[in-house]
Amino acid sequence: MTDLAQKTDTPPLNFGVIVFPVFQALDAFGPLDALNTLAYEFPLNLAIIAETLDPVSTKPPVVVSQNINPRSNFSESIVPTHTFDTAPPIDVLLVPGGKGTRDPKTVQGAIDFVAKVYPSLRYLITVCTGAGIAARAGVLDGRRATTNKMNWATSIAHRKEVNWIAHARWVVDGNIWTSSGVSAGLDVVFAFVAEVYGKKAADNVANILEYERHTDSKWDPYAELYGLKDSSAS
Amino acid sequence: MTDLAQKTDTPPLNFGVIVFPVFQALDAFGPLDALNTLAYEFPLNLAIIAETLDPVSTKPPVVVSQNINPRSNFSESIVPTHTFDTAPPIDVLLVPGGKGTRDPKTVQGAIDFVAKVYPSLRYLITVCTGAGIAARAGVLDGRRATTNKMNWATSIAHRKEVNWIAHARWVVDGNIWTSSGVSAGLDVVFAFVAEVYGKKAADNVANILEYERHTDSKWDPYAELYGLKDSSAS
Repeated sequence: MTDLAQKTDTPPLNFGVIVFPVFQALDAFGPLDALNTLAYEFPLNLAIIAETLDPVSTKPPVVVSQNINPRSNFSESIVPTHTFDTAPPIDVLLVPGGKGTRDPKTVQGAIDFVAKVYPSLRYLITVCTGAGIAARAGVLDGRRATTNKMNWATSIAHRKEVNWIAHARWVVDGNIWTSSGVSAGLDVVFAFVAEVYGKKAADNVANILEYERHTDSKWDPYAELYGLKDSSAS
Repeated sequence: MTDLAQKTDTPPLNFGVIVFPVFQALDAFGPLDALNTLAYEFPLNLAIIAETLDPVSTKPPVVVSQNINPRSNFSESIVPTHTFDTAPPIDVLLVPGGKGTRDPKTVQGAIDFVAKVYPSLRYLITVCTGAGIAARAGVLDGRRATTNKMNWATSIAHRKEVNWIAHARWVVDGNIWTSSGVSAGLDVVFAFVAEVYGKKAADNVANILEYERHTDSKWDPYAELYGLKDSSAS
C-alpha cells in the first residue's frame, strides 16, 4: 500500500473552523453540530481558530444602509481554541461566511490563513460567503465553486479567476467543497460525510439531527429566486 | 384598546436562551440564527442565560455505554450574558436540548429557572429534549407537547402529566411551542416567526438563510422511523 492510498483509506481526524467577527452562526454551527454528532462514532478533533483567543461574536455593526436594525442587540459569541499563529495541523478546514467577510480588515487574517494552510489540507469546505474568503486566498482559481445566492454579485466580484456556478446547492472541485448560503452548510457537510465517512454514517447523523437533507447538489431554488447566472473564469 | 390587546399587538422584544453543559449546538443555533437575521428587521434583544458566566460547552463526557467516542475532542463553547440569578425580563424563552438534559445536576438550574419565569413569559419555545426541561418544570402539565424522537422514551418518562404527541414536527398549546429533535428547532422558530411577526418576515429570513422550511407541523418521518406512539397524560 502506498502512502497516498493509506492516507486516503484513513478518514480525516483533525478539523478546524475559522471564526471572525460577524460570522453567520448557522454557517458554522450547522456543519459543526453534524460533526459533533459524527464524533460520537468516529474519533475527531476540532480546533476553533481566530485572530486572537477572545470570544468572537456574530454581532453586526449598526449599518443603516444594510437594513441592520440599530435598536437590536441580538448575537452570540463562540470561544476560539487557537489563533491563526497557534493552529495545530488540520486535515479538514471549514470556512463559514457572514457579513464580516465584507470587511477586509476583519477577514484578512482568515484569507491569509487559508492561503497558508491549504497546501497541507486534505479538504477545504466553505459555507455561504466563506467561499469569498477562499477565493481571495487564491485557492479557487480555475476551479468551479458556488457561494451565497442573495449576495451573489458581491461574492463573485472578489475573484474573477473562479468559475462561479450559480445554480448549485454545493459544488465539489478536487478537494474543495463550496456551498450555497447558510443552511446549505448542513447539506454540504452531510454530502462530505457520506463521501468520506460513508453513507451509513451520514444517514445515522441525519436521523439523530432529524434533518431531511438535500442530497442533490443541483437542488437550488434560490438561484432562480435571485435570478442568477453562472460566471465563467476570466 | 385594553392592555392585553396592546400587548398582543406589539411583537416580542426580549428573547432569552438557556444554555447548560452538553447542550446540542444546533438546537440553540438553528433558532438563534433565524432570530439573528430577524433582528435586522425587528428590534430584538437576546440574553444568553446559564448557571454562571463561564463559557458553556457542548462537549460530551466520555460515556462508553452511550457510544460517545472517548478518542474525540470535538466541541464548541458559547459565552453567557446573564446567569439564572441576573437574567433580565424576558418575553420569549428558548430552551434547547442535548445530552446534558439527562444529568439532573446539570439541568436542575435550568428547570428551576423555567418554573420561575414561565408565568411572566409571553412565549416558551423548546427544541428537542429541551421539552424535558419544561416538563420537569411542570409547565407542560395537561398540555400537548412533543420532543426528540430518537430519545422519546427517556424524554417522556420525565413527566407523565404531559400529553406527549409522537407524530409532530412541532406542537403549539397555548403559549408553549415544543418541537421535535435538533433541526426541528429551525422549523418551529420559523412557524413562530410567521405567526407572531408575519409570514412575510418568516419567508424573508428563510430566503436569506436559503432554508427550505417544513411548514406542516404534522410532517414527521422520524416518529415512524423510531416506531413511536402518542402517550396521553396520566
